[in-house]
Amino acid sequence: MAVTVDDKTVAELRNLADRLRIDSIRATNASKSGHPTSCASMAEIMSCLFFRVMKYKLSEPRDKSSDRFILSKGHAAPILYSAWAEAGLFPVEDLMNLRKLDSDLEGHPTPRLNFVDVATGSLGQGLSVACGMAYVGKNYDKASYRTYCLIGDGESAEGSIWEALHFAGHYRLDNLCAIFDINRLGQSEPTSLQHNMEVYRKRLEAFGFHAIVVDGHDVEELCKAFDEASSTLGKPTAILAKTYKGYKFPTISDELDWHGKPLGAKADEVIQAIEQQMQPGTSTGAPHIAEPVNDAPDVNIDDVRLSAPPAYKMGEMVATRLAYGTALAKLAEHNPRVIALDGDTKNSTYSDKIKKVSAERYIECFIAEQNLVGVAIGAGCRGRTIPYVSTFAAFFTRAFDQLRMGAISQTNITCVGSHAGVSIGEDGPSQMALEDLAMFRAIPGSTVFYPSDAVSCERAAEIAGKTKGICFIRTSRPNTAVIYDNEQVFSAGKGHVVRSHDGDDLVIVGAGVTLHEALKASDMLMESGIKAAVIDPFTIKPIDHDLLVKEATRCHGRVLTVEDHYPEGGLGEAVASTLAEQRNVIVKILAVREVPRSGPPEVLLEHFGIGAKAIAEAAKKLVAL
Amino acid sequence: MAVTVDDKTVAELRNLADRLRIDSIRATNASKSGHPTSCASMAEIMSCLFFRVMKYKLSEPRDKSSDRFILSKGHAAPILYSAWAEAGLFPVEDLMNLRKLDSDLEGHPTPRLNFVDVATGSLGQGLSVACGMAYVGKNYDKASYRTYCLIGDGESAEGSIWEALHFAGHYRLDNLCAIFDINRLGQSEPTSLQHNMEVYRKRLEAFGFHAIVVDGHDVEELCKAFDEASSTLGKPTAILAKTYKGYKFPTISDELDWHGKPLGAKADEVIQAIEQQMQPGTSTGAPHIAEPVNDAPDVNIDDVRLSAPPAYKMGEMVATRLAYGTALAKLAEHNPRVIALDGDTKNSTYSDKIKKVSAERYIECFIAEQNLVGVAIGAGCRGRTIPYVSTFAAFFTRAFDQLRMGAISQTNITCVGSHAGVSIGEDGPSQMALEDLAMFRAIPGSTVFYPSDAVSCERAAEIAGKTKGICFIRTSRPNTAVIYDNEQVFSAGKGHVVRSHDGDDLVIVGAGVTLHEALKASDMLMESGIKAAVIDPFTIKPIDHDLLVKEATRCHGRVLTVEDHYPEGGLGEAVASTLAEQRNVIVKILAVREVPRSGPPEVLLEHFGIGAKAIAEAAKKLVAL
Repeated sequence: MAVTVDDKTVAELRNLADRLRIDSIRATNASKSGHPTSCASMAEIMSCLFFRVMKYKLSEPRDKSSDRFILSKGHAAPILYSAWAEAGLFPVEDLMNLRKLDSDLEGHPTPRLNFVDVATGSLGQGLSVACGMAYVGKNYDKASYRTYCLIGDGESAEGSIWEALHFAGHYRLDNLCAIFDINRLGQSEPTSLQHNMEVYRKRLEAFGFHAIVVDGHDVEELCKAFDEASSTLGKPTAILAKTYKGYKFPTISDELDWHGKPLGAKADEVIQAIEQQMQPGTSTGAPHIAEPVNDAPDVNIDDVRLSAPPAYKMGEMVATRLAYGTALAKLAEHNPRVIALDGDTKNSTYSDKIKKVSAERYIECFIAEQNLVGVAIGAGCRGRTIPYVSTFAAFFTRAFDQLRMGAISQTNITCVGSHAGVSIGEDGPSQMALEDLAMFRAIPGSTVFYPSDAVSCERAAEIAGKTKGICFIRTSRPNTAVIYDNEQVFSAGKGHVVRSHDGDDLVIVGAGVTLHEALKASDMLMESGIKAAVIDPFTIKPIDHDLLVKEATRCHGRVLTVEDHYPEGGLGEAVASTLAEQRNVIVKILAVREVPRSGPPEVLLEHFGIGAKAIAEAAKKLVAL
Repeated sequence: MAVTVDDKTVAELRNLADRLRIDSIRATNASKSGHPTSCASMAEIMSCLFFRVMKYKLSEPRDKSSDRFILSKGHAAPILYSAWAEAGLFPVEDLMNLRKLDSDLEGHPTPRLNFVDVATGSLGQGLSVACGMAYVGKNYDKASYRTYCLIGDGESAEGSIWEALHFAGHYRLDNLCAIFDINRLGQSEPTSLQHNMEVYRKRLEAFGFHAIVVDGHDVEELCKAFDEASSTLGKPTAILAKTYKGYKFPTISDELDWHGKPLGAKADEVIQAIEQQMQPGTSTGAPHIAEPVNDAPDVNIDDVRLSAPPAYKMGEMVATRLAYGTALAKLAEHNPRVIALDGDTKNSTYSDKIKKVSAERYIECFIAEQNLVGVAIGAGCRGRTIPYVSTFAAFFTRAFDQLRMGAISQTNITCVGSHAGVSIGEDGPSQMALEDLAMFRAIPGSTVFYPSDAVSCERAAEIAGKTKGICFIRTSRPNTAVIYDNEQVFSAGKGHVVRSHDGDDLVIVGAGVTLHEALKASDMLMESGIKAAVIDPFTIKPIDHDLLVKEATRCHGRVLTVEDHYPEGGLGEAVASTLAEQRNVIVKILAVREVPRSGPPEVLLEHFGIGAKAIAEAAKKLVAL
């Protein structure tokens, strides 16, 4: 398709690029920190995108039908802010508040700003999010909007970028356009590939992209490339833009040692040099913005409910991972926007159960957990879907940085990790999650469910889908007994006393497999004349502070916790810290205290000191204190 | 170079492959779990490698001059064990103990076995480790040994593989050979690329590899490819082996739904079918193993010492991140095997200081933290180097899974994370580490240093280099006052009372920037007639239990902790859990309780409740209890 870009447009886009450049210099100078040179290399890309290519509503930056833009290289935030300001969303003068405590124009973009979908700044994460958006646009929304992601060359060394490229290529996301700002220079030295554009081209083509190499400072070339991207069907497009860091900054352009440095005293001189090059006679007012086609459907992501209540028999042996699969299918039955994502473990986590309801609502992300989580975050943006993401709990550690950024992004996803702890048995320590509770607890605003039976697990899945922030459900591999009525009501932060007697000597807190071990221990202790109450916390975060205080007080201040997890950051520390301000309460923590090994599950539980016998022994010692 | 493989060798290698196959079937049947089909696809690769290509000493599997082999697809452990057994390292009958509690033949390989350098089983990690070994072999040992890494096609979707490929290509590691076992099938469905060998070839070539596509079941082709790899200079080689999962298993080969399943009742029939194909007349005894060239130098990694003691003035303002750089250079001066690795943040973490001692001992890993940590783990294997790995503390979250596996691998590395907490200021939450203590504490056997001044930071770096396991040093961005004499002695697990008075009303525990805030708070409290002791724990793990108990008891059981970290899994919970078994002790935890934002560091400290004023206020309330 032949495209012509008229001279006036070219001149305007050039001038707009320079305005963005100058804004970025001024803003970073005002804040005395930031990355003006990283902005300058992408100024033409931004002017073309925001003032010619992208279709969006200024009145509603997160409009469902508008094109999406993800700035993966988040340190170039000032030019993103500048683009929206120049577009007319807010006064250009506000850019001078960059990085101030009372301004949302932070050092790196976050969704505190209404034109930002996800926080960026930890590099290499944007493309996965963009893939999630594009996948939803193409397959669920079936709408016209396109997704653009701008990636720095430095961050393209991150494996997560290649996971995302592979995903986009595999699913032929032709509504996705990845733009690489190849400015040759990293923070501390040149990038490994510098300006070797042909290597980039070969890599992108090998990953299933239509790759276009352009001079990233030539707005005409850029416009043509973007048009070519829009008309390329069956595969995503990558625009590989050869650029210069600090472009148009005399004596600074393409030089090292200018990363993350405002221009300071040099700013005036640089701005003057840029202004002298600007073509007179082109408009300086608010630029033209293309309107989106309003064809994304309205959806309801708030109506989350199991299509039928749990249906188990008391005492029935069911693995919570299986109960999760059952719940997922019920949730999907009720709401067409419930989707599931997994990394080739769907027959172990039981996320494959959703395929019986709707095969399309399962997204196979293959063995690439960083991208798995990133795609889920993207799929949940602008409230388009209710994503449930699963893999072995241990493998979520792969995506800790994505989860960390997800919290800053105000993302709403539910992560479900199976195969927790030594109770998985023979597969050995590489497959055993023993630090997942510590990880998910440390995510701000997270909710951490650790259901101990099938009934509570189904409800955990339901509650999680309605809960804002990042939710984690820890499921177990072995079958465990159903201990709750199908009618039992659950809520986050509410624990349950599952065993108590008059005159209890201590209270034991367990979860998952260890709750069942605690119940066995309680039976054993009774034979020794010791009465032990047992609490199921249901959520580890928030933990039921009031219940724990009440029961600890009732049970002579003796609390014993037991978890199939390392001692740091798990159930024991959650209990110890919520009780830390109580005098006369002691907490004894049983946990896995070394790297475990292969063996039969029940043997491992005792071997690592978290089985019924070990609990009973610890309880006896505690009661003697 | 023309290579001929004689018919007898071909026949022997084929038969050996079948023996490995049969061993794998028997072992997994005995353990009733495991992955025989994943072993079968790589049987010919293993027989060629172990019985023709690799040079190694059976008498010393971790010999410094022998070739290295990393089984990245760790679930194929049975065939690795079988290869060593058939080579003669231990009786073949021992394979029947697979996955038993009292056997080191675990479900996935760990270095409990003397022929395993690193644990594998979390996919996609082996190649980074292999890169570390190859880099050391080429650049430091300058020895003949080669490194082989066998990668599954499923795991090649992991971004960490592409980070490692990029690293190997960039550094032209021609002593590295990556073998891809492309057996088409994942766990739950076919891999995304199935048998599309040309796509693999294009990708590998684009990443700087000499790529050879072979029939992975043809030993002659394999031998030729390995010989070609050995003679290819200036770039690493990838052997792309087209294989079939469960090859030679009738009705099972190339079929889905056989992942991770022993053959059970089908085993006998399958073994019979394989045996019928085996060529008679070839040797069944211990096969030939090639001897290595003994040219790797002896090294001493135990002599770790600062070349000169810390040299600061009391009260001098020095950032701990800078003190780390100073210490690194001193350590490098003393021991030629001290190396530093970073991910393009060396001018922020100050790891670049090592370049002044020896530019070669710095390994730039670019922005790819998973590979960064993996390369360090590999570089430390067989005691070849003392690796110090640095980046922003927040970005170590990217490598949590590598660190988790590192602990299982019994690895000895020191991670140094700079830019901790809200005290970094304007860059905002994406750059602030607020969960790093939780993460590193949850790694079994780890030691977590959190030095509060330059003197203690230098000593932390020295002690870490001598300490087994994974060490973490948390450094800070702002300048803080030197509070220790240059002669002060430090050790892991030993805290220091940095402020105390007769009749202290409470004790405050701070670390890094918050220790200095605690000291200010103590001054402020004195004006209100409240006496507050202050403790510097030096290490958060192990935490100085005895000192805390003693001081808590002395200070009326009132303990106040304050940390530039989220409340979960950090300093506060470390203190609360170590004091959890003490009656009459209460711990109040001050921490960052929401996602922070950009702003000036000192303003942020107070805004998020961990500055001197907030501490003093909390102390007053605590004293009233």
